[in-house]
Amino acid sequence: MLDEIRQQPQALERTLTHQTRGIAGFRAFLAKRRPRLVVIVARGTSDNAAQFGRYLIEIMTGIPVSLAAPSVHSIYGASVDYKDALVVGISQSGESSDISAVLTQAHKSGAMTVGITNEPGSTLANLAQHVFLVKAGREKSVAATKTYTGQLMSLYLLAHALGARIRIEDLQAIPEAVHSTLSLEFGILEIAGNYRDMRQAAVVARGLNYANAFEFALKMMETSYVVAERFSAADFLHGPIAMVDHNLPIFVFGPSGPAWASLHETLEKVQAMRAKTVIITDRSNREAAGLAEAVIRVPARLKELYTPIPYIIPAQLFAAALAHAKGLDADKPRGLHKVTTNL
Amino acid sequence: MLDEIRQQPQALERTLTHQTRGIAGFRAFLAKRRPRLVVIVARGTSDNAAQFGRYLIEIMTGIPVSLAAPSVHSIYGASVDYKDALVVGISQSGESSDISAVLTQAHKSGAMTVGITNEPGSTLANLAQHVFLVKAGREKSVAATKTYTGQLMSLYLLAHALGARIRIEDLQAIPEAVHSTLSLEFGILEIAGNYRDMRQAAVVARGLNYANAFEFALKMMETSYVVAERFSAADFLHGPIAMVDHNLPIFVFGPSGPAWASLHETLEKVQAMRAKTVIITDRSNREAAGLAEAVIRVPARLKELYTPIPYIIPAQLFAAALAHAKGLDADKPRGLHKVTTNL
Repeated sequence: MLDEIRQQPQALERTLTHQTRGIAGFRAFLAKRRPRLVVIVARGTSDNAAQFGRYLIEIMTGIPVSLAAPSVHSIYGASVDYKDALVVGISQSGESSDISAVLTQAHKSGAMTVGITNEPGSTLANLAQHVFLVKAGREKSVAATKTYTGQLMSLYLLAHALGARIRIEDLQAIPEAVHSTLSLEFGILEIAGNYRDMRQAAVVARGLNYANAFEFALKMMETSYVVAERFSAADFLHGPIAMVDHNLPIFVFGPSGPAWASLHETLEKVQAMRAKTVIITDRSNREAAGLAEAVIRVPARLKELYTPIPYIIPAQLFAAALAHAKGLDADKPRGLHKVTTNL
Repeated sequence: MLDEIRQQPQALERTLTHQTRGIAGFRAFLAKRRPRLVVIVARGTSDNAAQFGRYLIEIMTGIPVSLAAPSVHSIYGASVDYKDALVVGISQSGESSDISAVLTQAHKSGAMTVGITNEPGSTLANLAQHVFLVKAGREKSVAATKTYTGQLMSLYLLAHALGARIRIEDLQAIPEAVHSTLSLEFGILEIAGNYRDMRQAAVVARGLNYANAFEFALKMMETSYVVAERFSAADFLHGPIAMVDHNLPIFVFGPSGPAWASLHETLEKVQAMRAKTVIITDRSNREAAGLAEAVIRVPARLKELYTPIPYIIPAQLFAAALAHAKGLDADKPRGLHKVTTNL
């Protein structure tokens, strides 16, 4: 897992270089055939990437986005009207039958289809009309890391193709930001050691980093068996905040930008409830230190739009370090296999 | 909270009687102006009801549904193209400014708007073109119960208006099913006592009852400070199952019907991992007893389509009983207020 976390700058560069070829053509095609709706279908880590795509595409293109519930198709056999929609399947292996079934049905009902996958020969890649190939190299660890960031990168390119004002040059700066964030590894190892006995946690974020809350929580569940909740800062105040005490550490993604005011308010509230808080942020040490027990300071200064990939890196490192501190093998979570084909 | 749980048969009857008037006209109107997309906007408990609406409307009408992310509008100021969509706001108080903002913008961009609320004089009720009024009477407990089931009932009527094959007569049988389920109170009190020391839990469901997993988890967080996760059975096997052990009780909504096979598989897997499991089901005692430590057997025999309202009743009773067993006051969760207006 640690090896794969460290491979991400190169993996992202390869993915970006590969996907940039031909993107202008796809953008021109979509400009003439703008979808009325984007539907994203995925499971597990890929579904967390989908959550990011949901925010990114709506914010940057104004096209409504729906995260599909695969069960609607697979167990209820419903036939949803996806005419003039763009239906996007995300699957690392490309072999999730649930997802392929939705794409097949969508195509029949008149949708365009896109696949985001690591595997060029997979069912999903063969099925989709346009494929974004994640060039992450083979992912051996059950806990997906480089696949997730590769999927996020693909979603930036998809949003670009849908007309979003996302510049390829800005995306090209992301691998370097990931590289500089990897330098936090030793500091994070130390912080994680302090959470060795943690059995439950909540991860809070908002907006474009909300997906990262899901992903960080999932990594802690998979590698360290921490019962980790994930919330949007807004929903958190609607009930779940009642359970906060010093036994429930809170992890917050807190980049500068539009979501900061809301996250700052959450941080103040949980401080007052005596929670142990860890914040991943680019805010100054002086400002952040008063709000949290531990501050993981991301070195890169980025527009909030480009923070989600670099910001998940400390979380991945933390999950791997926590498993190590707990004496667990992050690469072999109990009861899990790499590919879940059939649900 | 217990009083309000017990009021639900009457509250549901009032809501249904009130909303049935005029529903034929709204159905006829929508038949001529079928939306291309349904968008549901909500927070907290109402967002759990929205999750139910998401499955119900897609399964029963084939119209794609999106659960809106209010942040897209409120903190990013995005202008999403909701032309020819039906945008549904759900808010108990009708005073959530996030939700009103989305409806206002949606109406400007050419959407029809619907409000589901308890308060006829609220901002939401005044804003929406069509209002489904939840006649639950005043809800004093911070933990919403009768409001949630009233919202679910309203969503059945909305789906009916959108052309779904949902018969008003079948809905009229639901209050009686709720009434018979309330008779489980003493048995549930006893089971809840055995979970007095529970600090974390996971709730698993699939399909139409998936929303109930969110709602049960939220009730346990609010009233008993249990760190309660919620998963679809399919996603659960994609990672989170790794954290299951005898310290993480699993609660499963297991009605007969299309979702049963998948839930049965999950139950067998968590049994093998030595989890303590509680199942809410209509399966025979003989069949269910081998799969769980405790079986809460719902007396009513219903088509799966009509199970979500009766099935949340044992969960509400359990959350109230658990708070009591823990010596907490379910009506006064720390750090919460009844109305969250501004996010």
